[in-house]
Amino acid sequence: MKTTRLEAFSDAVIAIIITIMVLELKVPHGATLDVLWSLFPVFLSYVLSFVYLGIYWNNHHHMIHTASRVTGPILWANLHLLFWLSLVPFVTGWMGENHFAPETAGVYGVVMLMCAIAYWILQEMIIAAEGSGSLLKRAIGGDWKGKLSPILYAAAIAVAFLFHWQWVAMSLYVLVALIWLVPDRRIERMLVAREE
Amino acid sequence: MKTTRLEAFSDAVIAIIITIMVLELKVPHGATLDVLWSLFPVFLSYVLSFVYLGIYWNNHHHMIHTASRVTGPILWANLHLLFWLSLVPFVTGWMGENHFAPETAGVYGVVMLMCAIAYWILQEMIIAAEGSGSLLKRAIGGDWKGKLSPILYAAAIAVAFLFHWQWVAMSLYVLVALIWLVPDRRIERMLVAREE
Amino acid sequence: MKTTRLEAFSDAVIAIIITIMVLELKVPHGATLDVLWSLFPVFLSYVLSFVYLGIYWNNHHHMIHTASRVTGPILWANLHLLFWLSLVPFVTGWMGENHFAPETAGVYGVVMLMCAIAYWILQEMIIAAEGSGSLLKRAIGGDWKGKLSPILYAAAIAVAFLFHWQWVAMSLYVLVALIWLVPDRRIERMLVAREE
Amino acid sequence: MKTTRLEAFSDAVIAIIITIMVLELKVPHGATLDVLWSLFPVFLSYVLSFVYLGIYWNNHHHMIHTASRVTGPILWANLHLLFWLSLVPFVTGWMGENHFAPETAGVYGVVMLMCAIAYWILQEMIIAAEGSGSLLKRAIGGDWKGKLSPILYAAAIAVAFLFHWQWVAMSLYVLVALIWLVPDRRIERMLVAREE
Repeated sequence: MKTTRLEAFSDAVIAIIITIMVLELKVPHGATLDVLWSLFPVFLSYVLSFVYLGIYWNNHHHMIHTASRVTGPILWANLHLLFWLSLVPFVTGWMGENHFAPETAGVYGVVMLMCAIAYWILQEMIIAAEGSGSLLKRAIGGDWKGKLSPILYAAAIAVAFLFHWQWVAMSLYVLVALIWLVPDRRIERMLVAREE
Repeated sequence: MKTTRLEAFSDAVIAIIITIMVLELKVPHGATLDVLWSLFPVFLSYVLSFVYLGIYWNNHHHMIHTASRVTGPILWANLHLLFWLSLVPFVTGWMGENHFAPETAGVYGVVMLMCAIAYWILQEMIIAAEGSGSLLKRAIGGDWKGKLSPILYAAAIAVAFLFHWQWVAMSLYVLVALIWLVPDRRIERMLVAREE
Repeated sequence: MKTTRLEAFSDAVIAIIITIMVLELKVPHGATLDVLWSLFPVFLSYVLSFVYLGIYWNNHHHMIHTASRVTGPILWANLHLLFWLSLVPFVTGWMGENHFAPETAGVYGVVMLMCAIAYWILQEMIIAAEGSGSLLKRAIGGDWKGKLSPILYAAAIAVAFLFHWQWVAMSLYVLVALIWLVPDRRIERMLVAREE
Repeated sequence: MKTTRLEAFSDAVIAIIITIMVLELKVPHGATLDVLWSLFPVFLSYVLSFVYLGIYWNNHHHMIHTASRVTGPILWANLHLLFWLSLVPFVTGWMGENHFAPETAGVYGVVMLMCAIAYWILQEMIIAAEGSGSLLKRAIGGDWKGKLSPILYAAAIAVAFLFHWQWVAMSLYVLVALIWLVPDRRIERMLVAREE
């Protein structure tokens, strides 16, 4: 299997996830702005998850590009990542409808943590398949973003479940998104270097 | 990232948005034409939004084609546009189910205005990335359509919220759609010229 | 715009329509075969529409292939066809849930008739764009299938609404599907001939 | 029609099926872990079906690659397979919501059996089109997986309906998934051999 096909399938799944997520924004009964306002928490959680999925789409693309071929472990690690990403609309809707109630914010973090772990596993599978001196390995370097994110997720999950400080948890989720929004030029730079 | 991939992802998202929008047309209880007739406003709003999304799909394609590469700002401006487009099924369903009630017509205009602004931002990002003498800049020229549309949307929003003249607002939305339906040959002409 | 892109977009929309149609098959309450049996009419109408959409997907592909370029009229005639196809899940669900009640069977036929007309318009737009001696024109020849289908749809609509003979209408819909299922080698043959 | 297009369409449909399946995981009312826990059976059935669809996606790809052209029978055998796969979200949701009640587990097996039969028919159509000495025929060899799976499905269906031993049935479904998860290198090896 070629990497382009894995990429096309993953792109399609992410495009569908990002779009069906809006179906959780159910059309309300009543035609006033008050009624619409009651959906604001669902809207906010939708915005956050939309940004997360945009980041995953973008980084996933760059990562897959460093692979020269698709092995069985890469294929299943990729499906494993798509599985956890597919749960994002569910936890987004649950958290939004319950106005970021502590346990819903905690479960949101659990799914995000699983996505991060699945992403890390996929990264390791690609590095393993490419052998020592893998382009991806050099590109990610110390991978401080990849190491920091799970710690922040875990902290957010802990404060949400233990202290019911859901706003601290939400702030941490926003923080992780911001960290990744800052463009990661490492892989891009390496790809350009390889071409030259 | 190549422009073809940004285009494929955007196409997929727009194809999904345009298609899941029909899910707002809920199968009614009762098997008579009377029951079906009660869905006519939802159907009408669906037609309008279908045409809008068709226009966005078409113009988006031509615009992306003028870009020679995808920068970070272009990528996120594109996701920003897709975000607002993804809200179209929601406002379409809300407006239709409430028979074009003033506030729903106003909110429909707000989302349309945000789509137009997001489209304009994406346009500017592409022009900025291409540098002075950008093909897109020359192609859009005075961009009277791009300048007129937000004004018409703003007017529609105002009359919907302030005077509750929802039919004036709806007429303005139809007018904007008609303006864009008239084919915009500028970009196409420039692309043909470039190839020659 | 290239025909490949129009084809890719149309394929995506048809793939989504064919798949979300199954969402009308709502998971029932109750875990017995009796409960499942009550969904049998919905299942039957799903099968019929699945076959219809498969036929449209296949023939649409062959037709687009005969076009050498995408003009504005072709683009909008294509979106017009996709619009009517997008209503298929709705009428399928409505007809199935109401056990093929006469008026639902009649409305199903109306949407099918509109799809057929939209397909015919698209065909004419491609022939017009290709000029005299168009490959498509020669390929479809007398186009007896294209001429017979609307007549059969119209007959089915009439008997459904006027006499409430919904089973005659359904038989006519099955008949049209069977007519088209018999492979139409005309276009394929012409394409092969052109390549040679 | 080229095999790449059949593949792209099938990929899109499978990507949509795998993703809309998560819509059966309905956002619950209530913001506690208890409420979430009640969805655990639905989650479990989702995991099982996700793995099945991942396996079908992967094997389908390899199988289509052995075909050199798409005949009418291949096209319709492929749509027939997609039809049964499209029912997977429905039976997955039904089984999950009813906590693997015997009859729901039996019906799940029936759909899985039909998918397996449809896959086998598609395989035979490709072999028939390729003629004697078909690459696919040599690649699948004795096809013990393809022969064993329907037997295991049939056994699961029988114990589910006759003895209400739904957990035996579920174990058999998991067993079939595991058998296929072990990578099937036959086709891949043949494709590599052909290229050399």
